[in-house]
Amino acid sequence: MNSEFGLIARYFTRPAPPGFLGVGDDCALFPVAAGHHLATSTDLLVEGRHFFADVNPAALGHKSLAVNLSDLAAMGAQPLACLLSLSIPAVDDDWLQGFADGFYALAEASGCPLIGGDTTRSSAGIVISVTIMGQVKPQHALRRNAARVGDDIWVTGTLGAADIALRLLQNKLPSNPSLLAATRDALERPLPPWRFAQQLAGVAHAALDISDGLAQDLGHILKASDCGAELVYNALPIASALQGLDEFLVQDAVLSGGDVYQLCFTAPVDARARIKDLAQGASIQVARVGTIVAQPGLRVKKADSTVIVMKQGGFDHFS
Amino acid sequence: MNSEFGLIARYFTRPAPPGFLGVGDDCALFPVAAGHHLATSTDLLVEGRHFFADVNPAALGHKSLAVNLSDLAAMGAQPLACLLSLSIPAVDDDWLQGFADGFYALAEASGCPLIGGDTTRSSAGIVISVTIMGQVKPQHALRRNAARVGDDIWVTGTLGAADIALRLLQNKLPSNPSLLAATRDALERPLPPWRFAQQLAGVAHAALDISDGLAQDLGHILKASDCGAELVYNALPIASALQGLDEFLVQDAVLSGGDVYQLCFTAPVDARARIKDLAQGASIQVARVGTIVAQPGLRVKKADSTVIVMKQGGFDHFS
Repeated sequence: MNSEFGLIARYFTRPAPPGFLGVGDDCALFPVAAGHHLATSTDLLVEGRHFFADVNPAALGHKSLAVNLSDLAAMGAQPLACLLSLSIPAVDDDWLQGFADGFYALAEASGCPLIGGDTTRSSAGIVISVTIMGQVKPQHALRRNAARVGDDIWVTGTLGAADIALRLLQNKLPSNPSLLAATRDALERPLPPWRFAQQLAGVAHAALDISDGLAQDLGHILKASDCGAELVYNALPIASALQGLDEFLVQDAVLSGGDVYQLCFTAPVDARARIKDLAQGASIQVARVGTIVAQPGLRVKKADSTVIVMKQGGFDHFS
Repeated sequence: MNSEFGLIARYFTRPAPPGFLGVGDDCALFPVAAGHHLATSTDLLVEGRHFFADVNPAALGHKSLAVNLSDLAAMGAQPLACLLSLSIPAVDDDWLQGFADGFYALAEASGCPLIGGDTTRSSAGIVISVTIMGQVKPQHALRRNAARVGDDIWVTGTLGAADIALRLLQNKLPSNPSLLAATRDALERPLPPWRFAQQLAGVAHAALDISDGLAQDLGHILKASDCGAELVYNALPIASALQGLDEFLVQDAVLSGGDVYQLCFTAPVDARARIKDLAQGASIQVARVGTIVAQPGLRVKKADSTVIVMKQGGFDHFS
């Protein structure tokens, strides 16, 4: 079974939904609803760069899909299907089974069946490429260029935990097993709000997912929408695991820490009650953290009346 | 400019067609025609495994898309858009410009705009992941399981040249510069018949693209369609560059050589004239090479009345 076809048959072939053609032909086929556009995104995860070689394979399978679900969520699109390509140095059955289990668990939870892909042997480390496809009414897509002056700025979930876990695993912070235990799932098992995000279509204006840090990612909205933003630091949803840590460490993790895979979105003031209702209905934590303003740039107001002027400077793969 | 965003902006952002949302947001968006299904496939190309480190970058850019266009063609689908993920050890401007030029030239020729992707740095060699999306009426999709007893078997283009070029480059054949010159384009710049393939939708029965060798790939149709095949060796469209080579080398290259990216399809006998007309109109070479039969297995009849019984044994990435 240790063949290309064997790997696909053994680990990555589960029945496709009715009306779908899944693994086994030259292409996968599926319908897109009338009035909708196909929304698609792809992410490449490379061992040693995006994950550690010894990461739990089920967590890695989960995260490989989660980062792509996050892109769909940031567009307000409904997941339809995904493709997985995997380049691995050797066949390790336990690893493959774990990876497949983690991947499929999230694929099933999010209604995003795995319908095709490719496997190959690589001389170097593991490389994972996932492409996700969803559907959205084009007039409801949450574009980055749609923020308007006066919009509230909202964030889902909490901030900072993934960055602290990453620093601990990279030995950039002193060893702290209990802190790692409290933050590691945020890094390794992010859960983007894919259902809630679809409900924001037609309610919110602009949105994106926080992958490279709130400041940098919000900066993309500001640039695309030709506006600025003021954030209220005390309104930011700081992960509770960060309580008691150094103030500037927390600030850096919250404003610049990546791997969050939650949404930052803007919406008109009169949508506040609707957004809170939708979030409650979807059991999603939302925080209103600031305002879109005409003056360019991103300023963060702290409780002591100081203002942090953020420069663009999140994570950049070629810096 | 040597940043992730800089790389995308510099090399991989060209205007998307009207009605498409291309590079620059969380997802790309595009419409799918009413009555059609989305057809999608993905291929992973790894340095040292699928291509040589010193391959011409424009040829590599071309081939990265061509192998995916070939999958769409094998379904009879019309190309709509593609995504490109690229993991590279370092930024080499000449290489990237060459790769992008080769990729875009084929994307534009085939009406398959590049609308998104991902770039990252890898510690090891180059890894390329391309996902292609097209559309096809589901009732016209050229499925592998649709061959019927009595169908003609057809092949587009010619066979064998890519395999001979690969053997020469791998030093598995004695150095022969003129033979390499005559076969190298078949290996490095395959041109799948994407327009002709769309015209086969509703005319042909089963189809696939020859990537792992005619015998192995046709075997997939036979297995999926629960039938057998008889090929007439002298009817096979052997590449003219192979004239004068050892008979058994040619036979192996033609029947088992991969990297062809031409179509093998089956069609009813009464479609012969229609297929020839379509091929002539599309300037595509087609050859009628055999017949689908009830008896399982694949037999190749030679002019001297000997019969080669083919075993499954094309290229397998984990064998």
